[in-house]
Amino acid sequence: MVEHKTQLRVRFAETDQMGVVYYANYFVWFEVGRTNLLRDAGLPYRVMEENGVLLPVISANCTYIKSARYDDLLTIITRIHEKPRARVRLDYTVQNESGDKLAEGFTVHSFMRRNGRPVRPPEAFQAIMAPYFKD
Amino acid sequence: MVEHKTQLRVRFAETDQMGVVYYANYFVWFEVGRTNLLRDAGLPYRVMEENGVLLPVISANCTYIKSARYDDLLTIITRIHEKPRARVRLDYTVQNESGDKLAEGFTVHSFMRRNGRPVRPPEAFQAIMAPYFKD
Amino acid sequence: MVEHKTQLRVRFAETDQMGVVYYANYFVWFEVGRTNLLRDAGLPYRVMEENGVLLPVISANCTYIKSARYDDLLTIITRIHEKPRARVRLDYTVQNESGDKLAEGFTVHSFMRRNGRPVRPPEAFQAIMAPYFKD
Amino acid sequence: MVEHKTQLRVRFAETDQMGVVYYANYFVWFEVGRTNLLRDAGLPYRVMEENGVLLPVISANCTYIKSARYDDLLTIITRIHEKPRARVRLDYTVQNESGDKLAEGFTVHSFMRRNGRPVRPPEAFQAIMAPYFKD
Repeated sequence: MVEHKTQLRVRFAETDQMGVVYYANYFVWFEVGRTNLLRDAGLPYRVMEENGVLLPVISANCTYIKSARYDDLLTIITRIHEKPRARVRLDYTVQNESGDKLAEGFTVHSFMRRNGRPVRPPEAFQAIMAPYFKD
Repeated sequence: MVEHKTQLRVRFAETDQMGVVYYANYFVWFEVGRTNLLRDAGLPYRVMEENGVLLPVISANCTYIKSARYDDLLTIITRIHEKPRARVRLDYTVQNESGDKLAEGFTVHSFMRRNGRPVRPPEAFQAIMAPYFKD
Repeated sequence: MVEHKTQLRVRFAETDQMGVVYYANYFVWFEVGRTNLLRDAGLPYRVMEENGVLLPVISANCTYIKSARYDDLLTIITRIHEKPRARVRLDYTVQNESGDKLAEGFTVHSFMRRNGRPVRPPEAFQAIMAPYFKD
Repeated sequence: MVEHKTQLRVRFAETDQMGVVYYANYFVWFEVGRTNLLRDAGLPYRVMEENGVLLPVISANCTYIKSARYDDLLTIITRIHEKPRARVRLDYTVQNESGDKLAEGFTVHSFMRRNGRPVRPPEAFQAIMAPYFKD
Protein backbone atom coordinates (compact mmCIF):
# COMPACT_ATOMS: atom_id res chain seq x y z
CA MET A 1 0.00 0.00 0.00
CA VAL A 2 1.09 3.55 -0.72
CA GLU A 3 -0.02 6.20 1.76
CA HIS A 4 0.43 9.95 1.70
CA LYS A 5 -0.78 12.76 3.93
CA THR A 6 -1.24 16.35 2.90
CA GLN A 7 -2.56 19.31 4.87
CA LEU A 8 -4.66 22.16 3.61
CA ARG A 9 -6.80 24.92 4.97
CA VAL A 10 -10.39 25.41 3.94
CA ARG A 11 -10.79 28.53 1.81
CA PHE A 12 -13.72 30.93 2.07
CA ALA A 13 -14.27 30.32 -1.64
CA GLU A 14 -14.92 26.65 -0.87
CA THR A 15 -17.88 27.30 1.43
CA ASP A 16 -21.50 27.75 0.35
CA GLN A 17 -24.51 29.39 1.93
CA MET A 18 -25.13 26.35 4.17
CA GLY A 19 -22.06 27.63 6.03
CA VAL A 20 -19.99 24.55 5.20
CA VAL A 21 -17.83 23.38 2.31
CA TYR A 22 -19.65 22.82 -0.99
CA TYR A 23 -19.70 19.12 -1.80
CA ALA A 24 -17.89 19.29 -5.16
CA ASN A 25 -14.83 20.85 -3.54
CA TYR A 26 -13.90 17.61 -1.77
CA PHE A 27 -12.99 16.29 -5.21
CA VAL A 28 -10.60 19.21 -5.65
CA TRP A 29 -8.93 18.22 -2.38
CA PHE A 30 -8.71 14.61 -3.59
CA GLU A 31 -6.79 15.97 -6.59
CA VAL A 32 -4.47 17.90 -4.27
CA GLY A 33 -3.88 14.64 -2.38
CA ARG A 34 -2.98 12.64 -5.48
CA THR A 35 -0.84 15.44 -6.94
CA ASN A 36 1.17 15.57 -3.72
CA LEU A 37 1.41 11.77 -3.47
CA LEU A 38 2.88 11.58 -6.97
CA ARG A 39 5.26 14.50 -6.45
CA ASP A 40 6.54 13.09 -3.15
CA ALA A 41 6.89 9.64 -4.73
CA GLY A 42 9.29 11.22 -7.21
CA LEU A 43 7.08 11.30 -10.28
CA PRO A 44 5.23 14.61 -10.43
CA TYR A 45 2.03 14.44 -12.49
CA ARG A 46 3.28 17.61 -14.19
CA VAL A 47 6.23 15.64 -15.55
CA MET A 48 4.04 12.70 -16.53
CA GLU A 49 1.86 15.09 -18.57
CA GLU A 50 4.91 16.70 -20.15
CA ASN A 51 5.90 13.19 -21.24
CA GLY A 52 2.52 12.81 -22.91
CA VAL A 53 0.75 10.55 -20.42
CA LEU A 54 -2.49 11.80 -18.84
CA LEU A 55 -4.46 10.31 -15.95
CA PRO A 56 -8.11 11.16 -16.66
CA VAL A 57 -10.72 10.32 -14.05
CA ILE A 58 -13.02 7.42 -14.95
CA SER A 59 -15.13 7.49 -11.82
CA ALA A 60 -15.31 9.46 -8.60
CA ASN A 61 -17.10 8.89 -5.33
CA CYS A 62 -17.42 10.67 -2.01
CA THR A 63 -19.31 9.95 1.20
CA TYR A 64 -19.86 12.95 3.46
CA ILE A 65 -19.81 12.29 7.19
CA LYS A 66 -19.21 15.59 8.98
CA SER A 67 -19.03 19.09 7.50
CA ALA A 68 -15.73 20.81 6.81
CA ARG A 69 -15.79 24.51 7.69
CA TYR A 70 -13.96 27.66 6.66
CA ASP A 71 -10.42 27.92 8.05
CA ASP A 72 -10.39 24.27 9.23
CA LEU A 73 -6.95 22.70 8.94
CA LEU A 74 -7.58 19.40 7.21
CA THR A 75 -5.53 16.32 6.49
CA ILE A 76 -6.13 14.50 3.22
CA ILE A 77 -4.91 10.90 3.44
CA THR A 78 -4.42 9.39 -0.01
CA ARG A 79 -3.87 5.66 -0.41
CA ILE A 80 -3.29 3.19 -3.23
CA HIS A 81 -4.36 -0.23 -1.94
CA GLU A 82 -3.94 -2.27 -5.09
CA LYS A 83 -1.09 -2.42 -7.53
CA PRO A 84 -1.93 -0.09 -10.43
CA ARG A 85 -2.35 -1.88 -13.77
CA ALA A 86 -4.30 -0.45 -16.71
CA ARG A 87 -6.23 1.47 -14.09
CA VAL A 88 -5.30 3.06 -10.77
CA ARG A 89 -7.65 3.50 -7.86
CA LEU A 90 -6.87 6.05 -5.16
CA ASP A 91 -8.71 6.20 -1.84
CA TYR A 92 -9.03 9.38 0.18
CA THR A 93 -9.92 10.22 3.76
CA VAL A 94 -10.50 13.80 4.91
CA GLN A 95 -9.82 14.47 8.60
CA ASN A 96 -10.04 17.58 10.72
CA GLU A 97 -7.53 18.61 13.40
CA SER A 98 -9.29 16.53 16.06
CA GLY A 99 -8.87 13.46 13.87
CA ASP A 100 -12.58 13.23 13.04
CA LYS A 101 -13.25 11.67 9.68
CA LEU A 102 -15.21 14.22 7.62
CA ALA A 103 -15.41 12.35 4.36
CA GLU A 104 -14.02 9.45 2.40
CA GLY A 105 -14.01 8.65 -1.25
CA PHE A 106 -12.11 7.32 -4.21
CA THR A 107 -11.23 8.03 -7.80
CA VAL A 108 -10.36 5.59 -10.59
CA HIS A 109 -8.04 6.68 -13.39
CA SER A 110 -6.78 5.29 -16.67
CA PHE A 111 -3.55 6.11 -18.48
CA MET A 112 -4.09 7.90 -21.76
CA ARG A 113 -2.12 9.65 -24.50
CA ARG A 114 -2.95 13.22 -25.53
CA ASN A 115 -4.82 11.84 -28.52
CA GLY A 116 -7.18 9.95 -26.20
CA ARG A 117 -5.67 6.51 -26.81
CA PRO A 118 -5.15 4.25 -23.78
CA VAL A 119 -1.52 3.61 -22.90
CA ARG A 120 0.35 1.37 -20.46
CA PRO A 121 1.44 2.99 -17.19
CA PRO A 122 4.80 4.72 -17.73
CA GLU A 123 7.78 2.58 -16.65
CA ALA A 124 8.89 5.26 -14.19
CA PHE A 125 5.48 5.01 -12.55
CA GLN A 126 5.61 1.20 -12.40
CA ALA A 127 9.11 1.27 -10.96
CA ILE A 128 8.06 3.66 -8.21
CA MET A 129 4.95 1.64 -7.33
CA ALA A 130 6.45 -1.86 -7.49
CA PRO A 131 8.13 -1.93 -4.05
CA TYR A 132 4.83 -1.19 -2.32
CA PHE A 133 2.93 -4.18 -3.67
CA LYS A 134 3.46 -7.96 -3.76
CA ASP A 135 2.48 -9.44 -7.08
CA MET B 1 -40.42 8.45 -11.57
CA VAL B 2 -39.74 12.17 -11.76
CA GLU B 3 -37.67 13.35 -14.71
CA HIS B 4 -36.37 16.80 -15.57
CA LYS B 5 -34.13 18.15 -18.32
CA THR B 6 -32.05 21.25 -18.13
CA GLN B 7 -29.64 22.73 -20.65
CA LEU B 8 -26.40 24.51 -19.97
CA ARG B 9 -23.32 25.61 -21.83
CA VAL B 10 -19.84 24.62 -20.73
CA ARG B 11 -17.95 27.63 -19.38
CA PHE B 12 -14.28 28.29 -20.03
CA ALA B 13 -13.87 28.39 -16.23
CA GLU B 14 -14.98 24.76 -16.09
CA THR B 15 -12.18 23.43 -18.30
CA ASP B 16 -8.72 22.42 -17.16
CA GLN B 17 -5.37 22.08 -18.90
CA MET B 18 -6.33 18.67 -20.33
CA GLY B 19 -8.58 20.72 -22.61
CA VAL B 20 -11.77 19.21 -21.20
CA VAL B 21 -14.07 19.88 -18.24
CA TYR B 22 -12.52 19.35 -14.80
CA TYR B 23 -14.12 16.33 -13.16
CA ALA B 24 -15.44 18.07 -10.02
CA ASN B 25 -17.56 20.43 -12.14
CA TYR B 26 -19.95 17.67 -13.16
CA PHE B 27 -21.17 17.74 -9.56
CA VAL B 28 -21.93 21.45 -9.95
CA TRP B 29 -24.06 20.57 -13.00
CA PHE B 30 -25.84 17.88 -10.98
CA GLU B 31 -26.74 20.61 -8.51
CA VAL B 32 -28.06 22.80 -11.34
CA GLY B 33 -30.17 19.82 -12.43
CA ARG B 34 -31.71 19.24 -9.02
CA THR B 35 -32.25 22.96 -8.38
CA ASN B 36 -34.18 23.23 -11.65
CA LEU B 37 -36.13 20.02 -11.03
CA LEU B 38 -37.32 21.34 -7.65
CA ARG B 39 -38.14 24.81 -9.00
CA ASP B 40 -40.11 23.42 -11.94
CA ALA B 41 -41.90 20.97 -9.61
CA GLY B 42 -43.18 24.01 -7.72
CA LEU B 43 -40.99 23.78 -4.64
CA PRO B 44 -37.82 25.83 -5.13
CA TYR B 45 -34.95 24.71 -2.93
CA ARG B 46 -34.50 28.39 -2.09
CA VAL B 47 -37.95 28.36 -0.48
CA MET B 48 -37.27 25.06 1.28
CA GLU B 49 -34.13 26.59 2.83
CA GLU B 50 -36.03 29.74 3.82
CA ASN B 51 -38.44 27.43 5.63
CA GLY B 52 -35.51 25.96 7.54
CA VAL B 53 -35.11 22.63 5.75
CA LEU B 54 -31.77 21.86 4.12
CA LEU B 55 -30.85 19.02 1.76
CA PRO B 56 -27.19 18.26 2.46
CA VAL B 57 -25.40 15.72 0.28
CA ILE B 58 -24.62 12.39 1.97
CA SER B 59 -22.89 10.77 -0.98
CA ALA B 60 -22.02 11.62 -4.55
CA ASN B 61 -20.88 9.54 -7.48
CA CYS B 62 -19.97 10.15 -11.09
CA THR B 63 -18.80 7.93 -13.95
CA TYR B 64 -17.08 9.73 -16.80
CA ILE B 65 -17.65 8.30 -20.27
CA LYS B 66 -16.78 11.00 -22.83
CA SER B 67 -15.26 14.42 -22.21
CA ALA B 68 -17.37 17.57 -22.12
CA ARG B 69 -15.69 20.52 -23.83
CA TYR B 70 -15.82 24.30 -23.70
CA ASP B 71 -18.92 25.81 -25.30
CA ASP B 72 -20.68 22.43 -25.60
CA LEU B 73 -24.43 22.70 -25.15
CA LEU B 74 -25.26 19.98 -22.64
CA THR B 75 -28.46 18.43 -21.36
CA ILE B 76 -28.57 17.36 -17.72
CA ILE B 77 -31.29 14.77 -17.16
CA THR B 78 -32.22 14.50 -13.49
CA ARG B 79 -34.38 11.65 -12.25
CA ILE B 80 -35.85 10.47 -8.97
CA HIS B 81 -36.53 6.74 -9.35
CA GLU B 82 -37.67 5.90 -5.85
CA LYS B 83 -40.14 7.65 -3.62
CA PRO B 84 -38.16 9.94 -1.30
CA ARG B 85 -38.41 8.99 2.39
CA ALA B 86 -35.87 10.00 5.01
CA ARG B 87 -33.42 10.17 2.13
CA VAL B 88 -33.71 11.19 -1.52
CA ARG B 89 -31.59 9.82 -4.31
CA LEU B 90 -31.27 11.74 -7.57
CA ASP B 91 -29.75 10.24 -10.71
CA TYR B 92 -28.14 12.36 -13.40
CA THR B 93 -27.17 11.84 -17.03
CA VAL B 94 -25.10 14.37 -18.95
CA GLN B 95 -25.61 14.39 -22.72
CA ASN B 96 -24.13 16.49 -25.50
CA GLU B 97 -26.02 17.88 -28.49
CA SER B 98 -25.57 14.66 -30.47
CA GLY B 99 -27.22 12.73 -27.67
CA ASP B 100 -23.97 11.05 -26.58
CA LYS B 101 -23.89 10.18 -22.93
CA LEU B 102 -20.88 11.96 -21.42
CA ALA B 103 -21.35 11.02 -17.78
CA GLU B 104 -23.81 9.61 -15.29
CA GLY B 105 -23.97 9.78 -11.55
CA PHE B 106 -26.10 10.21 -8.49
CA THR B 107 -26.35 12.07 -5.21
CA VAL B 108 -28.06 11.01 -1.98
CA HIS B 109 -29.47 13.67 0.34
CA SER B 110 -31.04 13.80 3.78
CA PHE B 111 -33.43 16.40 5.16
CA MET B 112 -31.93 18.47 7.95
CA ARG B 113 -32.74 21.50 10.08
CA ARG B 114 -30.31 24.44 10.27
CA ASN B 115 -29.12 23.11 13.63
CA GLY B 116 -28.01 19.86 11.97
CA ARG B 117 -30.90 17.73 13.27
CA PRO B 118 -32.55 15.33 10.83
CA VAL B 119 -36.11 16.20 9.90
CA ARG B 120 -38.95 14.57 7.94
CA PRO B 121 -39.37 15.70 4.34
CA PRO B 122 -41.54 18.84 4.26
CA GLU B 123 -45.21 18.09 3.54
CA ALA B 124 -45.13 20.31 0.47
CA PHE B 125 -42.30 18.17 -0.88
CA GLN B 126 -44.14 14.92 -0.12
CA ALA B 127 -47.32 16.24 -1.75
CA ILE B 128 -45.44 17.16 -4.91
CA MET B 129 -43.65 13.82 -5.13
CA ALA B 130 -46.58 11.54 -4.23
CA PRO B 131 -48.30 11.43 -7.65
CA TYR B 132 -45.13 10.17 -9.30
CA PHE B 133 -44.72 7.05 -7.18
CA LYS B 134 -46.90 4.08 -6.25
CA ASP B 135 -46.53 3.13 -2.62
CA MET C 1 -20.68 50.16 -29.54
CA VAL C 2 -21.38 46.45 -29.35
CA GLU C 3 -23.87 45.33 -26.71
CA HIS C 4 -24.98 41.85 -25.71
CA LYS C 5 -27.26 40.51 -23.00
CA THR C 6 -27.12 37.06 -21.51
CA GLN C 7 -29.16 35.53 -18.73
CA LEU C 8 -28.00 33.08 -16.11
CA ARG C 9 -29.16 31.71 -12.82
CA VAL C 10 -27.02 31.84 -9.70
CA ARG C 11 -25.82 28.37 -8.73
CA PHE C 12 -25.60 27.12 -5.16
CA ALA C 13 -21.93 26.40 -5.88
CA GLU C 14 -21.40 30.12 -6.46
CA THR C 15 -22.50 31.20 -2.98
CA ASP C 16 -20.33 31.35 0.11
CA GLN C 17 -21.03 31.30 3.82
CA MET C 18 -21.98 34.99 3.82
CA GLY C 19 -25.12 33.75 2.06
CA VAL C 20 -24.33 35.62 -1.16
CA VAL C 21 -22.27 34.99 -4.28
CA TYR C 22 -18.50 34.73 -3.73
CA TYR C 23 -16.78 37.73 -5.29
CA ALA C 24 -14.51 35.84 -7.71
CA ASN C 25 -17.51 34.26 -9.43
CA TYR C 26 -18.57 37.54 -11.01
CA PHE C 27 -15.49 37.19 -13.21
CA VAL C 28 -16.77 33.80 -14.36
CA TRP C 29 -20.05 35.47 -15.36
CA PHE C 30 -18.10 38.14 -17.23
CA GLU C 31 -16.51 35.31 -19.20
CA VAL C 32 -19.95 33.84 -19.94
CA GLY C 33 -20.98 37.29 -21.18
CA ARG C 34 -18.05 37.66 -23.55
CA THR C 35 -18.28 34.06 -24.79
CA ASN C 36 -21.93 34.63 -25.69
CA LEU C 37 -21.25 38.03 -27.27
CA LEU C 38 -18.61 36.50 -29.55
CA ARG C 39 -20.75 33.45 -30.43
CA ASP C 40 -23.78 35.60 -31.24
CA ALA C 41 -21.59 37.98 -33.26
CA GLY C 42 -20.71 35.01 -35.47
CA LEU C 43 -17.18 34.38 -34.26
CA PRO C 44 -17.21 31.86 -31.40
CA TYR C 45 -14.15 32.09 -29.17
CA ARG C 46 -13.95 28.32 -29.53
CA VAL C 47 -13.31 28.77 -33.25
CA MET C 48 -10.84 31.60 -32.65
CA GLU C 49 -8.86 29.28 -30.34
CA GLU C 50 -9.01 26.44 -32.87
CA ASN C 51 -7.49 28.91 -35.36
CA GLY C 52 -4.65 29.50 -32.92
CA VAL C 53 -5.60 32.91 -31.56
CA LEU C 54 -6.12 33.26 -27.80
CA LEU C 55 -7.56 36.18 -25.86
CA PRO C 56 -5.80 36.12 -22.48
CA VAL C 57 -6.91 38.56 -19.79
CA ILE C 58 -4.48 41.40 -19.06
CA SER C 59 -6.50 43.07 -16.35
CA ALA C 60 -9.82 42.58 -14.61
CA ASN C 61 -11.89 44.80 -12.37
CA CYS C 62 -15.20 44.55 -10.56
CA THR C 63 -17.16 46.89 -8.30
CA TYR C 64 -19.77 45.23 -6.10
CA ILE C 65 -22.92 47.21 -5.42
CA LYS C 66 -25.62 44.78 -4.24
CA SER C 67 -25.30 41.08 -3.47
CA ALA C 68 -26.35 38.42 -5.94
CA ARG C 69 -28.09 35.48 -4.27
CA TYR C 70 -28.72 31.81 -4.97
CA ASP C 71 -31.33 31.16 -7.67
CA ASP C 72 -31.43 34.83 -8.76
CA LEU C 73 -32.04 35.21 -12.47
CA LEU C 74 -29.38 37.65 -13.61
CA THR C 75 -28.69 39.58 -16.78
CA ILE C 76 -25.10 40.13 -17.79
CA ILE C 77 -24.78 43.08 -20.17
CA THR C 78 -21.51 43.00 -22.08
CA ARG C 79 -20.36 46.01 -24.06
CA ILE C 80 -17.42 46.97 -26.25
CA HIS C 81 -17.25 50.78 -26.25
CA GLU C 82 -14.05 51.30 -28.21
CA LYS C 83 -12.93 49.77 -31.45
CA PRO C 84 -10.65 46.83 -30.58
CA ARG C 85 -7.05 47.25 -31.75
CA ALA C 86 -4.10 45.43 -30.24
CA ARG C 87 -6.21 45.21 -27.12
CA VAL C 88 -9.93 44.79 -26.48
CA ARG C 89 -11.76 46.11 -23.48
CA LEU C 90 -15.12 44.67 -22.50
CA ASP C 91 -17.41 46.27 -19.93
CA TYR C 92 -19.94 44.29 -17.93
CA THR C 93 -23.02 45.13 -15.89
CA VAL C 94 -24.77 42.54 -13.72
CA GLN C 95 -28.47 43.16 -13.11
CA ASN C 96 -31.11 41.24 -11.19
CA GLU C 97 -34.71 40.66 -12.33
CA SER C 98 -35.85 43.98 -10.86
CA GLY C 99 -33.25 45.78 -12.97
CA ASP C 100 -31.07 46.65 -9.97
CA LYS C 101 -27.41 46.96 -10.83
CA LEU C 102 -25.53 44.44 -8.67
CA ALA C 103 -22.05 44.91 -10.04
CA GLU C 104 -20.08 46.39 -12.90
CA GLY C 105 -16.61 45.72 -14.15
CA PHE C 106 -14.35 45.29 -17.11
CA THR C 107 -11.66 43.07 -18.57
CA VAL C 108 -8.87 43.95 -20.98
CA HIS C 109 -7.53 41.32 -23.37
CA SER C 110 -4.72 40.99 -25.87
CA PHE C 111 -4.53 38.74 -28.91
CA MET C 112 -1.90 36.04 -28.59
CA ARG C 113 -0.66 32.95 -30.42
CA ARG C 114 -0.40 29.61 -28.60
CA ASN C 115 3.34 30.20 -28.25
CA GLY C 116 2.67 33.36 -26.25
CA ARG C 117 3.53 35.80 -29.06
CA PRO C 118 1.25 38.80 -29.56
CA VAL C 119 -0.71 38.74 -32.79
CA ARG C 120 -3.00 41.14 -34.67
CA PRO C 121 -6.73 40.65 -34.17
CA PRO C 122 -7.97 38.01 -36.66
CA GLU C 123 -9.48 39.54 -39.81
CA ALA C 124 -12.79 37.80 -39.16
CA PHE C 125 -12.90 39.53 -35.79
CA GLN C 126 -12.07 42.93 -37.30
CA ALA C 127 -14.66 42.49 -40.02
CA ILE C 128 -17.35 41.69 -37.45
CA MET C 129 -16.44 44.63 -35.23
CA ALA C 130 -15.93 47.29 -37.92
CA PRO C 131 -19.60 48.19 -38.56
CA TYR C 132 -20.09 49.07 -34.89
CA PHE C 133 -17.39 51.71 -34.69
CA LYS C 134 -16.49 54.89 -36.57
CA ASP C 135 -12.79 55.18 -37.16
CA MET D 1 2.46 49.03 6.58
CA VAL D 2 1.39 45.48 7.30
CA GLU D 3 2.92 42.76 5.15
CA HIS D 4 2.29 39.04 5.06
CA LYS D 5 3.55 36.22 2.86
CA THR D 6 1.77 32.97 2.21
CA GLN D 7 2.71 30.06 -0.02
CA LEU D 8 0.43 27.88 -2.05
CA ARG D 9 0.64 25.40 -4.87
CA VAL D 10 -1.37 25.77 -8.04
CA ARG D 11 -4.07 23.10 -8.23
CA PHE D 12 -5.04 21.30 -11.42
CA ALA D 13 -8.60 22.52 -10.76
CA GLU D 14 -7.33 26.09 -11.09
CA THR D 15 -6.07 25.70 -14.65
CA ASP D 16 -8.11 26.11 -17.82
CA GLN D 17 -7.73 24.88 -21.38
CA MET D 18 -5.20 27.62 -22.19
CA GLY D 19 -2.86 25.53 -20.01
CA VAL D 20 -2.53 28.24 -17.36
CA VAL D 21 -4.47 29.38 -14.31
CA TYR D 22 -7.97 30.73 -14.99
CA TYR D 23 -8.05 34.45 -14.27
CA ALA D 24 -10.79 34.43 -11.62
CA ASN D 25 -8.74 32.10 -9.41
CA TYR D 26 -6.21 34.82 -8.58
CA PHE D 27 -8.98 36.43 -6.54
CA VAL D 28 -9.32 33.20 -4.56
CA TRP D 29 -5.59 33.38 -3.79
CA PHE D 30 -6.00 37.01 -2.71
CA GLU D 31 -8.60 35.76 -0.23
CA VAL D 32 -6.15 33.10 1.04
CA GLY D 33 -3.60 35.89 1.50
CA ARG D 34 -5.90 38.10 3.54
CA THR D 35 -7.26 35.18 5.59
CA ASN D 36 -3.71 34.22 6.55
CA LEU D 37 -2.69 37.83 7.25
CA LEU D 38 -5.60 38.23 9.66
CA ARG D 39 -5.02 34.87 11.36
CA ASP D 40 -1.30 35.52 11.82
CA ALA D 41 -2.06 39.04 13.09
CA GLY D 42 -4.05 37.41 15.87
CA LEU D 43 -7.56 38.19 14.64
CA PRO D 44 -8.83 35.35 12.46
CA TYR D 45 -11.57 36.40 10.07
CA ARG D 46 -13.46 33.32 11.28
CA VAL D 47 -13.59 34.88 14.77
CA MET D 48 -14.54 38.30 13.38
CA GLU D 49 -17.48 36.67 11.57
CA GLU D 50 -18.50 34.76 14.70
CA ASN D 51 -18.60 38.14 16.45
CA GLY D 52 -20.99 39.38 13.79
CA VAL D 53 -18.67 41.56 11.70
CA LEU D 54 -18.26 40.74 8.01
CA LEU D 55 -15.76 42.13 5.51
CA PRO D 56 -17.54 42.09 2.15
CA VAL D 57 -15.60 43.05 -0.97
CA ILE D 58 -16.51 46.43 -2.47
CA SER D 59 -14.11 46.31 -5.38
CA ALA D 60 -11.49 43.97 -6.78
CA ASN D 61 -8.75 44.41 -9.34
CA CYS D 62 -6.04 42.25 -10.86
CA THR D 63 -3.36 42.86 -13.47
CA TYR D 64 -1.93 39.73 -15.08
CA ILE D 65 1.74 39.84 -16.02
CA LYS D 66 2.96 36.25 -16.43
CA SER D 67 0.94 33.03 -16.34
CA ALA D 68 0.83 30.84 -13.26
CA ARG D 69 0.94 27.13 -14.10
CA TYR D 70 -0.15 23.85 -12.52
CA ASP D 71 2.03 22.74 -9.61
CA ASP D 72 3.85 26.10 -9.39
CA LEU D 73 4.79 27.03 -5.84
CA LEU D 74 3.59 30.60 -5.47
CA THR D 75 4.05 33.31 -2.88
CA ILE D 76 1.15 35.66 -2.23
CA ILE D 77 2.35 38.89 -0.63
CA THR D 78 -0.50 40.76 1.05
CA ARG D 79 -0.03 44.33 2.22
CA ILE D 80 -2.07 47.01 3.94
CA HIS D 81 -0.49 50.34 3.04
CA GLU D 82 -2.97 52.72 4.64
CA LYS D 83 -4.50 52.69 8.09
CA PRO D 84 -7.90 50.99 7.79
CA ARG D 85 -10.84 53.26 8.61
CA ALA D 86 -14.39 52.68 7.41
CA ARG D 87 -12.78 50.81 4.53
CA VAL D 88 -9.71 48.60 4.23
CA ARG D 89 -7.65 48.20 1.12
CA LEU D 90 -5.39 45.19 0.70
CA ASP D 91 -2.77 44.94 -2.04
CA TYR D 92 -1.53 41.62 -3.37
CA THR D 93 1.46 40.45 -5.37
CA VAL D 94 1.73 36.92 -6.77
CA GLN D 95 5.27 35.63 -7.28
CA ASN D 96 6.62 32.33 -8.54
CA GLU D 97 9.63 30.46 -7.11
CA SER D 98 12.06 32.45 -9.25
CA GLY D 99 10.71 35.67 -7.77
CA ASP D 100 8.98 36.71 -11.02
CA LYS D 101 5.92 38.84 -10.46
CA LEU D 102 2.99 37.03 -12.07
CA ALA D 103 0.18 39.34 -11.04
CA GLU D 104 -0.74 42.17 -8.74
CA GLY D 105 -4.05 43.48 -7.55
CA PHE D 106 -6.09 44.82 -4.71
CA THR D 107 -9.40 44.47 -2.93
CA VAL D 108 -11.34 47.08 -0.96
CA HIS D 109 -13.60 45.99 1.90
CA SER D 110 -16.09 47.57 4.24
CA PHE D 111 -17.11 46.42 7.71
CA MET D 112 -20.70 45.23 7.89
CA ARG D 113 -23.11 43.57 10.31
CA ARG D 114 -24.97 40.39 9.31
CA ASN D 115 -28.03 42.53 8.61
CA GLY D 116 -26.11 44.48 5.98
CA ARG D 117 -25.62 47.63 8.08
CA PRO D 118 -22.19 49.28 8.00
CA VAL D 119 -20.28 49.10 11.26
CA ARG D 120 -17.05 50.55 12.65
CA PRO D 121 -13.98 48.31 12.50
CA PRO D 122 -13.94 46.06 15.60
CA GLU D 123 -11.73 47.43 18.40
CA ALA D 124 -9.63 44.28 18.37
CA PHE D 125 -8.92 44.93 14.69
CA GLN D 126 -8.03 48.58 15.30
CA ALA D 127 -5.76 47.66 18.20
CA ILE D 128 -3.90 45.14 16.06
CA MET D 129 -3.49 47.55 13.16
CA ALA D 130 -2.58 50.70 15.11
CA PRO D 131 1.13 49.95 15.72
CA TYR D 132 1.75 49.62 11.98
CA PHE D 133 0.54 53.07 11.00
CA LYS D 134 1.31 56.65 12.05
CA ASP D 135 -1.82 58.74 12.36
